[in-house]
Amino acid sequence: MIRSIEWLGDRVRFLDQTALPRQECYVETSDYHVIAEGIRCLKLRGAPLIGIAASYGVALAAVAFHGTDFDKLSNIVRAASAELSSTRPTAVNLFWALERMHNVFAACDSVGAAQRALVEEATGIHKADARMCEKIGEHGAALVPDPAAILTHCNTGALATGGGGTAQSLITTAHRQGKSIKVFAGETRPLLQGARLTAWELQKSGIDTTLITDSTGPVLMSMGKIDLVVVGADRIAANGDTANKIGTYNLAVTAHHHRVPFYVAAPGSTIDRSLASGAKIIIEERSSKELTEMFGQQLAPRGISTFTPAFDVTPASLITAIVTETGVHRPPYRFEK
Amino acid sequence: MIRSIEWLGDRVRFLDQTALPRQECYVETSDYHVIAEGIRCLKLRGAPLIGIAASYGVALAAVAFHGTDFDKLSNIVRAASAELSSTRPTAVNLFWALERMHNVFAACDSVGAAQRALVEEATGIHKADARMCEKIGEHGAALVPDPAAILTHCNTGALATGGGGTAQSLITTAHRQGKSIKVFAGETRPLLQGARLTAWELQKSGIDTTLITDSTGPVLMSMGKIDLVVVGADRIAANGDTANKIGTYNLAVTAHHHRVPFYVAAPGSTIDRSLASGAKIIIEERSSKELTEMFGQQLAPRGISTFTPAFDVTPASLITAIVTETGVHRPPYRFEK
Repeated sequence: MIRSIEWLGDRVRFLDQTALPRQECYVETSDYHVIAEGIRCLKLRGAPLIGIAASYGVALAAVAFHGTDFDKLSNIVRAASAELSSTRPTAVNLFWALERMHNVFAACDSVGAAQRALVEEATGIHKADARMCEKIGEHGAALVPDPAAILTHCNTGALATGGGGTAQSLITTAHRQGKSIKVFAGETRPLLQGARLTAWELQKSGIDTTLITDSTGPVLMSMGKIDLVVVGADRIAANGDTANKIGTYNLAVTAHHHRVPFYVAAPGSTIDRSLASGAKIIIEERSSKELTEMFGQQLAPRGISTFTPAFDVTPASLITAIVTETGVHRPPYRFEK
Repeated sequence: MIRSIEWLGDRVRFLDQTALPRQECYVETSDYHVIAEGIRCLKLRGAPLIGIAASYGVALAAVAFHGTDFDKLSNIVRAASAELSSTRPTAVNLFWALERMHNVFAACDSVGAAQRALVEEATGIHKADARMCEKIGEHGAALVPDPAAILTHCNTGALATGGGGTAQSLITTAHRQGKSIKVFAGETRPLLQGARLTAWELQKSGIDTTLITDSTGPVLMSMGKIDLVVVGADRIAANGDTANKIGTYNLAVTAHHHRVPFYVAAPGSTIDRSLASGAKIIIEERSSKELTEMFGQQLAPRGISTFTPAFDVTPASLITAIVTETGVHRPPYRFEK
């Protein structure tokens, strides 16, 4: 399995995702500044992975301290946490992980105890995420026939999590169970996470993978060549409406038209029970340059208007089932408080 | 209006489409080799435009001859025609135009008469194409409400034809009629004709244009922001099934889901009455590099499989109307022999 990040006792090893798919380049560091910079410049990306990396960053700052003065360690931990929290201001998992590290540290009163507790908490966050991925994979794989041609979108794999991924865990688990799996991966314009990351991960996992443009999936469905669609989620409302990477809604509508099952696989923490429906989900709009430029070159005329939502919202009525670590949820979805 | 090609009496002026959207660069030449090379390296592209350019190429070869020996001119015209026909081996319009030029030349018996006849035939082919674009625009504009938000795909404008385009002629005609028009242009992966060419043309025409990824159109439909979809066609079967640029089928299915009218606009010559349905249309598969590379850089892991059809087939049942130069055709479509 691809290890996007690992704790090596006194240092961290992580995969530089900006070098993919051209190079598989790992960074080993005992310096938390390198972790912070890695998150900032997207060497480490994917919401769960960012949280894990930040908690390892705090642990590194603590274990690098060789004195006995608890106040000094306290200052170091506070500075590391502040620097790490400034890297990606909108990443919810980042703040959640840093808060867990803060709470653990606050309960300690000696350097040695704090160092041990912080390392334990960080590795615990990592392990819990990996277990969550496994559970999603196990529940989800039961939905996969044998053989199966699966269409997926964006990146939901080891590169985004501390384990085997979310939607992608369903695919790799079915493959490990011996099912004959063929995957079609949408390239995922504009940032091409499908082409750069998912295609790379699946190829490395030895799974038969075909890269397509985002508009080719529906053509494959019309040819009867897709057995199911599975995607991840960025936020799920209490009624099952799901916000996910732009292009998801398109696949949900066309899957519905062709009576192809459409599954969402995501951690339970993605469910926002405070939202009655998807209508209230605020959709981030990205820089127009993501659409109009590549490798610093113009793809479109200067000054052209763009509409570049990062996500879209798929209504629950188009979702066959939602898979979380607790099981397979079927409509009507009622994720109550 | 953008003039993708012009006859200037003794030479041709054409827009180098490979420089778009970064530069608007025109080439003036009296040398038919420059035309042939322009077609070969895609400075001149779009099926109708290739035919027009090739016929001007033959005319240039003829008017550059200053002798009186008809046999010598005959050799020159034959050589030019052979060179021009070798540029794009699969372009039907190219051979059709060169055959018309050949037939005209075959009916002449003096240098002066042949030169006049070839120039007249080439400009005639060009004018007929422009008139065809106008007629499509007039018939199609009647389908456009005021105001209207129109979603389109790929390039169907002046850059592909000798006039104002096909699907795009419908848009520009409605705009010239004073209707309030807003266009959403899909970028059209993998070759980005929407971003590079359509966005540039519409911006230049002063039409309010927004560039989007191909998977964003359906989201706009779900928001009630699209009044109609219009696309071109590469081939239309007798029953109305339509082959067009990959991504068209996707828009047809999602337009159907949202009850948004979906129009095809194309010259009558696109209708292939020998085909009963779209099932028989052979779909060209393009080089995988169009998907996996850009500006010579890797977008996807080396060795990844791809599926890259150039076109898809939209069944007639999803097409609200087909607009040609003869009028607006409604289902059931019966284009008989």
